[in-house]
This record gives sequence, structure tokens and C-alpha cells, in this order.
Amino acid sequence: MNDPAPKDPDYEARVRASFASQGLMTTLGASLLRVSPGQVEISLPASAAVSQQHGFVHAGALASIADSAAGYAALTLMPPGAGVLTAEYKINLMAPGIGERMIARGRVIKAGRTLTLAQTDVFAVREGREKQIALLTATLMAVEGRDGVSD
Amino acid sequence: MNDPAPKDPDYEARVRASFASQGLMTTLGASLLRVSPGQVEISLPASAAVSQQHGFVHAGALASIADSAAGYAALTLMPPGAGVLTAEYKINLMAPGIGERMIARGRVIKAGRTLTLAQTDVFAVREGREKQIALLTATLMAVEGRDGVSD
Amino acid sequence: MNDPAPKDPDYEARVRASFASQGLMTTLGASLLRVSPGQVEISLPASAAVSQQHGFVHAGALASIADSAAGYAALTLMPPGAGVLTAEYKINLMAPGIGERMIARGRVIKAGRTLTLAQTDVFAVREGREKQIALLTATLMAVEGRDGVSD
Amino acid sequence: MNDPAPKDPDYEARVRASFASQGLMTTLGASLLRVSPGQVEISLPASAAVSQQHGFVHAGALASIADSAAGYAALTLMPPGAGVLTAEYKINLMAPGIGERMIARGRVIKAGRTLTLAQTDVFAVREGREKQIALLTATLMAVEGRDGVSD
Repeated sequence: MNDPAPKDPDYEARVRASFASQGLMTTLGASLLRVSPGQVEISLPASAAVSQQHGFVHAGALASIADSAAGYAALTLMPPGAGVLTAEYKINLMAPGIGERMIARGRVIKAGRTLTLAQTDVFAVREGREKQIALLTATLMAVEGRDGVSD
Repeated sequence: MNDPAPKDPDYEARVRASFASQGLMTTLGASLLRVSPGQVEISLPASAAVSQQHGFVHAGALASIADSAAGYAALTLMPPGAGVLTAEYKINLMAPGIGERMIARGRVIKAGRTLTLAQTDVFAVREGREKQIALLTATLMAVEGRDGVSD
Repeated sequence: MNDPAPKDPDYEARVRASFASQGLMTTLGASLLRVSPGQVEISLPASAAVSQQHGFVHAGALASIADSAAGYAALTLMPPGAGVLTAEYKINLMAPGIGERMIARGRVIKAGRTLTLAQTDVFAVREGREKQIALLTATLMAVEGRDGVSD
Repeated sequence: MNDPAPKDPDYEARVRASFASQGLMTTLGASLLRVSPGQVEISLPASAAVSQQHGFVHAGALASIADSAAGYAALTLMPPGAGVLTAEYKINLMAPGIGERMIARGRVIKAGRTLTLAQTDVFAVREGREKQIALLTATLMAVEGRDGVSD
């Protein structure tokens, strides 16, 4: 992405307020780290509360933070008032979610008027070292003027 | 799928025990409904705890139950001792998750020796009526003899 | 899909004319079989011209007819003047493309104003018997008033 | 990918021989450019023979070279005798295939014993300038000892 200039100067406050209203992120224990134009980073501590049957972090939890990171990366570049919805995503799981915490780093690949393509790399942090464990690509849709859908 | 004969007569107990050990399913409030050869159904009550910013059920929560339904549908056809891991999935979100509860119905499309293809339809139940809101296709991998990976 | 009533009474002629103008379909030797509201069927004879290195039909050829079947299934339900573009698709390959010919059957899962979700099942026909070899899910986008993009 | 050391010193000759035997690549007019450990580049001249109905390069043709680039990138890192099969891929189409030629650059993200994850960026070259038009992520499977499947 060249020149991902935000159309909304308050993009960061907007993303942070929206994230805070995602009940699922609170339930999972995820927190929003960096927010910059076209890029968003979310962290999730590993715990039994987000595990699958082998004790690893559940793919669903990884996908949840990865999808949110992609969606908010897209939102940073959308005009004020537009809402963002995920149309689809695919996630490839490369290695088990083993570590103290998981980090999802989303970035916009192409911001279009209606559709935005974003990608999120997910890393497991184990004893301070990062290892990529998943890759998500998502199609996000900008929605304007639909009841109840903003940010 | 013709003749999806389970290789493990105890497939249902095995799936139910594994599901019970998925911390994330407990955290989300999901419950396992039907388990039959090649098919698994999971239910999730809608609540603020699994919401996104517009108050709909978060795509990550929908994907979590859809992925689990696909994975367990695959596990019903795997031999005793094999573990199941999700290699990848894609989810298309067709409509917002609005309703009293969400239901994910996973079924095996093709069970191979190493890879299984499964598909999950996700429905929102609103005032007793079902509406399909998402479609997931997943590649599951059978793993044998790997430490800590069974069922 | 309930009630997939075509918005364009000439949907079949429109799809057939558009298909005839896809140079790639001619190059591959594909032909358009049935066209009905929300459903399209395309056939491809197996030959060395569409093979991969093991002599099977190349995944790219399978995906080409599967993508076209999904796109035209979507187009049957679009209003006159709208053009259809593929935003993304995923294809799972379940078995090698071995047989006399390949058949792609596309159908609309959800037709929206902007985005349509369609699915295509691909079969290999060998000695008169069909075997499913691939599954594609696609997001199609309706485009209106863009230069050069209609049907 | 750190240290993608090829297990087969003859990886390049192997990839070039396999590519030459893909009838579809010849039919489309594609040619193999660079081959290095974990990376492969394929070029496709735009022509009416690979077009869709609007005159752009057909998504199926783009996906064909992108899939081949991903598959051969994976093959460069596989041991002698192993064959590569595409288990699944997803392609996001970001812009129409308009230009003199299309270039697909595939690279391995994670090479596993059984499964390899690869990604291909597709560019349209127009008046000498490259523009990314598609992004493919693929799961490739290493196959050993299966009749007719090598390279």
C-alpha cells in the first residue's frame, strides 16, 4: 500500500471505541495494541479459556483476533460514518497456538471504494520469541447508511 | 458422502469428551447438539459476550463454532487414536448474526486418509425461524502419533 | 435459495452471449450446458491441452470452469445492465481430474444487492460415472455503470 | 522463510521439466521465468485467448499461473521423488487483468513435511509498470509413492 492516507483524522479514536464495544474481544481477553493508517495489532494471552482440546489456543480464537485486526485495519482508511463488515476470510493454520500470548497484525493490501482486501499474520510469542502460526486474508465491505452499522 | 461408516464405534463419546475439553466452547457458551457419522451440530446463544461492535454475533464466534463443527464431523470418521487439526478454512458471511441463537451444522464432504474436506452451514434462529448466515469450508488433517494431539 | 426469480427475462441469452465472448472458454474447449435461474453448468473435455504434469486436468482449468459457472449463476439473477466480477474464490481439490470430461455445476447460495455468494461442484465423468473432485465457493460482485463491464 | 535450503540439488531442472509437461501452461502461452529455492515466477502474455467477457484476462487464467507458481515454489523445497498436489487455494482479485502481460510470483510461507503453505502475488504489467491485481494463498501436499504422481 502506497500512501494509505486516512480519510478520517479521528481514525484511531474511532477504532479504539469500536474495539471496546466488541464484547467478544473482552470475553476472550484480547487487547488492542497499535493502530496506524492501514495497520492494526491485537494481542491475546493464552489461557484455558481460549483453548481447544489439545490445550493449544483454539483456531477460532486466533481467527477472531485476526479477523478483527483485518477489519480494523480496513476501518482506519474508511471515511467517517462508514461501517465495516467482513464479507469473507480464509485462514491457514501453520502451527499450533503454543506460547504465552498470540499477536495478530493486520494490514490493508488494497483499499477499494466498496471492498477492501486485508491480510493478517498471527504469531505465537513463546519465551519472548515470535513464530508465525497463521495467515488470514479477508474481504471487508464498507457499509454506509445501514441502520446500526457504523465503525 | 456415501457410506460414512465410522472407524471408531465410540466416535460419539470421543467427540463429546473432546468438545468438553475445548475451553473456548465453554467460554463462548456453546453446546454440542447432535453427533452422527460425518455430521455434528453446535449451538451458541447470542449474547453481549460474543458480540461485535454493531451488536451482532461476532464473525469470530460464528467461525469458532463452525470450525469446531467441521472438525468434529471429520473426527467422527477417523480411526481410534488419530487427532484432528484444522489446516485451513474459509468462511463466507452472508448476513449478520442476529437472533436468539446460532446453529452450526458441519458435515464431511470427502474423508481422505490424510485430509478431510468438511463444510458447515451456520444459521441464525430468530423467533423460531432459521436463516442461513454463513458458509464455511475447511480442510482437516488427521494426525497420528504426535505428542499431545489426539481426538 | 427460495424464489430465485430472474430480474432480467432474457437472462439465458445474456449468459450465453457473454460465455461465447470469453476467449478462455474457447481456448480450453469448454462449453455451456444448462442455464436456469441461479444455476449454470459448464463442461470441459479432458485433453493434453488442459493437463498438469501428472496428466490429470490442471487445477487451473477446473477452477476456470468452476469460476465461470459460479459467475454466470450469479449473473442469471442480476438486473439488466449489471456486470459481474469475481471478487474472490476458494477451491478445494478433493481428487485428481481423471476422466473423459469435467462438469462444473454452479448455483447461487445468496444473491445480495452488491455481493452474491455462489458455490460450484466439479465432477469428473469417467466411463459414464460422475465423481465429485472439487468444490468452489465464490464471492461475485455486481457492477453497474463501469466502463466496459456488463454481463 | 528463513533458510529454505532445497533438499534436491536438481530442484531447478526438476521444476522446469515438470512445467514443460503441463499442457495447460503451453495452451495459455505461459512461460517459466525465475526458479529459486522457495520462489517461482511465471509470465503470461495477455491475449484474446485468455480473456473473459469484458476483454480482461480471465480470473481462471490468472489463477492457473498463480496456482502453478505456488505449487512449483513448494516443489523446489521437496525431497527428490516427491510429487506436489494442490489441496486448496483461495484467490482474491483486486483489479482487472489489464496490461500487456501478467506475472505470478509464488513463494513458500511455511514448508511442512506433509503440507506447504505458499502465497502468490499476481501483477499486471502495463506500459512497463507493475500493478498488483491478485493474491493467492495455497495449501500444497507432498505425495510420495503414489502412482503417476511425481514432481
